[in-house]
Amino acid sequence: MPDTDELYLAVQREKKLVKIASGRLEADLVLKNANVFAGFFGGFERGDIAIADGRIAGIGSYSGKEEIDLDGMFVTPGFIDAQVHIECSMLMPERYAELVVPCGTTTIVADPHEIANIAGNDGIQYILEATENLPLNVYLMMPSCVPSSDMETSGAKLLAGDLQHLSMNPRVLGLAEMMNAPGVLAGDPDVYDKLMMAKERNMPIDGHAPGLYGKALAGYAAGGIESDHECVTADEARARLACGMHLVLRETSAAHSLEKLLPAVNEHNAQFCFFSADDRQPADILSDGDINYVVRKAIMLGMPVATAIQMATINAAKYFGLRDLGAIAPGWKADLVVFDNLIDWVPKLVIKDGSIVANDGKMAAGIEYAKPSGNICHTVSAAPVKKEDLAVPVPSGYAHVIGLVPHQIFTRHLRLNVKTKNGMAIADTDSDILKLAVVERHHASGNVAAALVKGYGLSHGAIGLTIAHDSHNMIIIGTNDDDMLAAAEELSEIQGGVVITDGGDVKAELALPVAGLMSPHSAEEVASDIRQINRIAHEMGVSYAYDPIFSLTFLSLVVMPELKLSDKGLIDSSLSVIPVNAE
Amino acid sequence: MPDTDELYLAVQREKKLVKIASGRLEADLVLKNANVFAGFFGGFERGDIAIADGRIAGIGSYSGKEEIDLDGMFVTPGFIDAQVHIECSMLMPERYAELVVPCGTTTIVADPHEIANIAGNDGIQYILEATENLPLNVYLMMPSCVPSSDMETSGAKLLAGDLQHLSMNPRVLGLAEMMNAPGVLAGDPDVYDKLMMAKERNMPIDGHAPGLYGKALAGYAAGGIESDHECVTADEARARLACGMHLVLRETSAAHSLEKLLPAVNEHNAQFCFFSADDRQPADILSDGDINYVVRKAIMLGMPVATAIQMATINAAKYFGLRDLGAIAPGWKADLVVFDNLIDWVPKLVIKDGSIVANDGKMAAGIEYAKPSGNICHTVSAAPVKKEDLAVPVPSGYAHVIGLVPHQIFTRHLRLNVKTKNGMAIADTDSDILKLAVVERHHASGNVAAALVKGYGLSHGAIGLTIAHDSHNMIIIGTNDDDMLAAAEELSEIQGGVVITDGGDVKAELALPVAGLMSPHSAEEVASDIRQINRIAHEMGVSYAYDPIFSLTFLSLVVMPELKLSDKGLIDSSLSVIPVNAE
Repeated sequence: MPDTDELYLAVQREKKLVKIASGRLEADLVLKNANVFAGFFGGFERGDIAIADGRIAGIGSYSGKEEIDLDGMFVTPGFIDAQVHIECSMLMPERYAELVVPCGTTTIVADPHEIANIAGNDGIQYILEATENLPLNVYLMMPSCVPSSDMETSGAKLLAGDLQHLSMNPRVLGLAEMMNAPGVLAGDPDVYDKLMMAKERNMPIDGHAPGLYGKALAGYAAGGIESDHECVTADEARARLACGMHLVLRETSAAHSLEKLLPAVNEHNAQFCFFSADDRQPADILSDGDINYVVRKAIMLGMPVATAIQMATINAAKYFGLRDLGAIAPGWKADLVVFDNLIDWVPKLVIKDGSIVANDGKMAAGIEYAKPSGNICHTVSAAPVKKEDLAVPVPSGYAHVIGLVPHQIFTRHLRLNVKTKNGMAIADTDSDILKLAVVERHHASGNVAAALVKGYGLSHGAIGLTIAHDSHNMIIIGTNDDDMLAAAEELSEIQGGVVITDGGDVKAELALPVAGLMSPHSAEEVASDIRQINRIAHEMGVSYAYDPIFSLTFLSLVVMPELKLSDKGLIDSSLSVIPVNAE
Repeated sequence: MPDTDELYLAVQREKKLVKIASGRLEADLVLKNANVFAGFFGGFERGDIAIADGRIAGIGSYSGKEEIDLDGMFVTPGFIDAQVHIECSMLMPERYAELVVPCGTTTIVADPHEIANIAGNDGIQYILEATENLPLNVYLMMPSCVPSSDMETSGAKLLAGDLQHLSMNPRVLGLAEMMNAPGVLAGDPDVYDKLMMAKERNMPIDGHAPGLYGKALAGYAAGGIESDHECVTADEARARLACGMHLVLRETSAAHSLEKLLPAVNEHNAQFCFFSADDRQPADILSDGDINYVVRKAIMLGMPVATAIQMATINAAKYFGLRDLGAIAPGWKADLVVFDNLIDWVPKLVIKDGSIVANDGKMAAGIEYAKPSGNICHTVSAAPVKKEDLAVPVPSGYAHVIGLVPHQIFTRHLRLNVKTKNGMAIADTDSDILKLAVVERHHASGNVAAALVKGYGLSHGAIGLTIAHDSHNMIIIGTNDDDMLAAAEELSEIQGGVVITDGGDVKAELALPVAGLMSPHSAEEVASDIRQINRIAHEMGVSYAYDPIFSLTFLSLVVMPELKLSDKGLIDSSLSVIPVNAE
């Protein structure tokens, strides 16, 4: 045995814990008179929980230096979010922790896919540093698809060799959602380098395969993909379970899939299912909760309480190989949530590593903020946009137009007769046809693509953002070029965010200086900024059928049908660039 | 990525499997029209199973170079025995495989505790070599308690440092049953060296804690012990589950605990439970089966079929971190069992790594036999035993006597007035008091301890064996010294086994030359030898309340109450040596 000091101390802690557990030494903290979701028992048991050095010593009758009488309150293990992109909250990791920890989430498994597309390993490194000392266990999965397509210009490209150093990091658990199902099926060497790297290390490989069925799904699973969080129907879910894939039930702000998925979960397969609260907006988490919201909803929909708790805790921990997380038992991490009832699932206390970190919905523990390094805060590098860049030549008068669809991230591929001036298309608010531009913002390449979009409803001004899946270039929609140019200029000025311009002036904005994706401010502040932006956008005519911001972020997600716009141009379902002119 | 040829081939196999799964390439073997216990589905699904390179490509509609029409037969994953001591079957590992594979057991997790107590790492190495190329996945746990007590002389002593090389072996999964609960609770440094070694490698640590409850159990669990296979009551089982310990439901020849344990298993904790068919005699496995017998019995006792199958497969695989074992799904190992009904659970076919290895209860695959090295086949090194060694001085006429208890491995501590001659106790068959001797047989130390035992019923001759838990010294019971000496001599002559002597002659014997524990012969041959020995023993008066052989093997298990005999003398419950004379 290596006889390092660290090991010596570990052994001492071990022996101390055993002494406390066996009643020969006083605990640091004891939660008295709790209803404990004990170990693997499968239900609640009355007892005291003895805690020392951040771990649980025992459940029974104990006394401690500090004692808190829970008077019969319910204690569950801390909740685990099995799949989340922190960046999608628009919050820095520390702010995200402040938001979800009071909800009872003490562990998240995050895929830094968004920031990796912008800043590569620097971005991932930033997330690792920012989450190092939070009152939240933050584990990462290695982004598997940076970039997710070569039909757009991303800020970085990560091959297996670029990820290898991460695979040695104890906080990195596996390979994140493999979005490139065609690559898995076709035997793409870059894809297999990544798959083999994870397999060699016996690491889990997450999936992402919306709508994949039958033999294509079998091929995808045979490639070693072990989970999917994209299911929206019970049949889709059953097909994945039958392929030996774990089912991640995800309830986002946009997609409420829990209700549709639950019929696929039964007493025999629940152990292979767990929860994700990914893509939920700060306002929704503030009002409804995080994983605790998903648990409450699952129970309301008829899931047994014990099953819901296990899906929010031990089932995910087992999948990720986290041996001391997800149960309240001797020797396990003292990450606990205290509820005064099992109806609203709003935590009274959240305990992390044996210390109270949240109290009645408010953080009790201070948070250390990591200062993002310069290269993370100056990621918007776009060449100045000129009027000509926004020109949309439509000599025929007939154009390929992106047709928005309410509550969907796919679009319709329309062919319309559009208003033109000197052979150039112009916005036509009467028929609700607007101009859309995507400006490459990573390498100042000067790449700008412009096209037309129908359905958004803006009647004057422009709206621009630096959140545009998956490469997060600038995406700007507008009724006139001047406001679009003003928006582009302002987005460069504030180094990313969301801007509304009108008559050449900035009417509203939310600065997201961290990688052009995240704000340094609190969830409350960001939520209120978003509320204000949405209000103004709707006042400027944006249809109430659309979320003014999030509906735009998916217009460049080229891997989704039917027609999208990247900095390389209009991309159709065959993933090839087509001209705007339709004839 | 390391670009070795091996990795290259692995990638090629991977891509081939994906091609077959997605229907673009013919499979090597397809099991047509099966009722498949598919993936994590939790039930049976009709389909073909496509197999290539020993792995499952997909379930659906497939064609292959070779096809077997199962015509609706049921296919489950190969069964896993989560805790077994191969040596206790008295069979060499290869013979053990021949016995259990036709029963549908395709994976065992074995603790080479018995042979390690005799030959240390050489013994473990022998088990590793003998199981290298079997049609049975044999994983090992590192024996944690060699020796299990210092109140007897064992053949070897293994500290953490001696086990470390094993922890690097991919076939070694964790630390085997930690029998030394007092050591865990007291902080014994040798115990903690072993525990920390396993923890550092994120390896499971198995337990062994009969009758441990309350805070002692909490302390034991806090030490990091993650399972127990010694439970005999539902309360004991519930207590372990509540402590976050996995429950191994073991059904042995001696102890039928399944019926008592099942009430503790429910839909919420079943995922933490799995099966063991340890300590079952060859005759019982031949007549009733192995894990398939436990599955059948669990279902007869009311367990849902899917739950029983999961406990016999995926639940154990997950605990041990075996990612590609325990489910029938794309990419997983093609270890399968085919049944024509779900009533008798007798396999029609057993498939291992994609090949048929057993057919209607008979092995179809050849077995490679590893020749045990000399030091494994010459382990009986006892100094010649002299009459004086067997003397039992009882000047007072009052003696401490071991009282046998039917069907139990503990004994009673009796104090009796016994027949003596010149101050020495002699066997007294009228009152059924016999002489018992334990002869140290590892180091020819000459250690011999003699005492008295009541209840066995032998009326003439002697019976001796080299199986005596846990150090496996010679244990000899007899009505007279001459036959006992003859038995000792014969046991040295045949290098271990079971011998019956009478009137100075050998009446029956079973040679166990491999470590003095295992026979090179088949299960059928060994079973018939044991039957014959038992018949003769009973003819010679051994009470039918006792198994003539196995009742003797526990008389030196000093860690069990109340009175035992080791080569160091009579050991009472306080684990101290006491004289035979009672006054």
